[in-house]
Amino acid sequence: MMGGDYGPRVTVPAIIKSLTAHPDLKLILVGNQEQIHARLDASASGVRNRIVVHHADDVIAMDEKPSAALRSKRDTSMRACLNLVKEGSAQACVSAGNTGALMAIGSHVLRKQQGLIRPAICSAIPTLKGHSYLLDLGANIECSAEQLSQFAIMGASLASAVDNIKQPRVALLNIGQEEIKGNAQVKEAAQLLQQSPLINYVGYVEGDVLFEGDADVIVCDGFTGNVALKTSEGVASFISKKIKRQLRGSVQKKVLAWLAMPVLSAIFKQLDARSLNGAVFLGLQGIVVKSHGNADAYSFSSAISLALSMASCGLADTIDNRLQALE
Amino acid sequence: MMGGDYGPRVTVPAIIKSLTAHPDLKLILVGNQEQIHARLDASASGVRNRIVVHHADDVIAMDEKPSAALRSKRDTSMRACLNLVKEGSAQACVSAGNTGALMAIGSHVLRKQQGLIRPAICSAIPTLKGHSYLLDLGANIECSAEQLSQFAIMGASLASAVDNIKQPRVALLNIGQEEIKGNAQVKEAAQLLQQSPLINYVGYVEGDVLFEGDADVIVCDGFTGNVALKTSEGVASFISKKIKRQLRGSVQKKVLAWLAMPVLSAIFKQLDARSLNGAVFLGLQGIVVKSHGNADAYSFSSAISLALSMASCGLADTIDNRLQALE
Repeated sequence: MMGGDYGPRVTVPAIIKSLTAHPDLKLILVGNQEQIHARLDASASGVRNRIVVHHADDVIAMDEKPSAALRSKRDTSMRACLNLVKEGSAQACVSAGNTGALMAIGSHVLRKQQGLIRPAICSAIPTLKGHSYLLDLGANIECSAEQLSQFAIMGASLASAVDNIKQPRVALLNIGQEEIKGNAQVKEAAQLLQQSPLINYVGYVEGDVLFEGDADVIVCDGFTGNVALKTSEGVASFISKKIKRQLRGSVQKKVLAWLAMPVLSAIFKQLDARSLNGAVFLGLQGIVVKSHGNADAYSFSSAISLALSMASCGLADTIDNRLQALE
Repeated sequence: MMGGDYGPRVTVPAIIKSLTAHPDLKLILVGNQEQIHARLDASASGVRNRIVVHHADDVIAMDEKPSAALRSKRDTSMRACLNLVKEGSAQACVSAGNTGALMAIGSHVLRKQQGLIRPAICSAIPTLKGHSYLLDLGANIECSAEQLSQFAIMGASLASAVDNIKQPRVALLNIGQEEIKGNAQVKEAAQLLQQSPLINYVGYVEGDVLFEGDADVIVCDGFTGNVALKTSEGVASFISKKIKRQLRGSVQKKVLAWLAMPVLSAIFKQLDARSLNGAVFLGLQGIVVKSHGNADAYSFSSAISLALSMASCGLADTIDNRLQALE
């Protein structure tokens, strides 16, 4: 409840929205109980019986170093929340807090799935046909071909489970430089995926068709994925700032830019996929969804919905079985 | 004259535009002389005395493999053009042809600059403050820290020479994953650049601020640069297609989208930096500018202007001196 740029100011309205939308959902709210209750009591009467507040004294700051957060013995809301998942009191953890700390403490508390080299961060990106999943987004800077295949397994399991796609199309993000297409790892991963009966491998995609929707899952190392995702945010922000500048131009430009705004803001909202859906940590023995730090109540409740659908469909077991079969 | 998607249909109007704009410019037009003359005679009367046509029998196809193009003994326009630069008859080569072939034959004919590990491909990208240079864009899939420093030297020399910036701000493209910022090469390159008196190193930039204009030169390996550039094209194309879909929606949406179009198409045109300015091959003993394959006459003549300003300012010598000083 304490994470992100706004804490309970955003998370409390978000959980009320989620509880109202999902009548079977129960939530354990982890954080400073005074702050939570102060915002809760006013508005939560209808859903109050499906809420438990779990107090934690301390909070991990958004800029705290993950290694420091991991070593610290403090009673933080993030660690308490992950512990609830570990002991089976909760089926998923949703947080808008410090990403690095959530990955570090999450890996430590929940442990990675058997046979997995390393967990990955995955997010939905909008496409012309709906959305695709892109992973890894920064948990693994350099990845072997085997790691990339494991990402493919996890991403495809997610698409099957959440979107009900029987044979998700999996692609590798690559560059179109003639002949020497990609680095050794990507080329070797392509061979592994081609041979795997578990994966519906559809080939390479390049950055310029990333948003066309030709694949359900797009796999790359964490460095490349992070650059691709952040660059797309950078372009959206560039376009949006350029349009706003027009508002300071001639009267004609002002009017045109002002008229264009409603059309555009809907599109830009789609592009900020992370704030809409949250990123998923794949490969842990427990579900962890990371909402964007500056998420509003609508976005944070989307992250809760995502965690709910992941918890409902036995994603961890699917991944587990497929990882074993890969070996 | 024969390269790109349109050949002389675009290149002839482009060279007339360039010759008209630059009264001191002389051009050697390399390609099929019948095709060139057929388009030239109608419109080139005023600038005809500054044109020489250099016939070449054959053409390298846009989809030809670079290695095959390199080995071939055919009299192609691309090789003839590069030979003119090598023998000093021309000061720069501009082509809209096959990128891989141009790099392969360019490296073979012109040779790389002394002390340089490998040439790089560089392009201007639009920013909120003007433009920055991004390199490498795909010539080098994996790069050592030393290569990244050499890219920094070459990019900074370009910014100094073409844009007259005394101490261009150089940044490394990196990811914001806490603590383990980037891979080993990027971290080592940061140290090299910090220590170098030749470089005004300003630190890391992430994808989301790539278009803010906080650096004049942004350095990365060719895999990352290619993904970043193509992803930004992908986002622009996604937004533009989304807006076009609105044109098929309700009357209100149609009107808004139609009104928004002029504001947007100007911005999208800026984003397609490659078609505006062309990409530059840095590190060869001779100037090579690669125009985008689908460039129109305006874009192709921009590439000619870029080659002209590079040739006028002794870029190769600047790079040469700085590379020696780096060692």
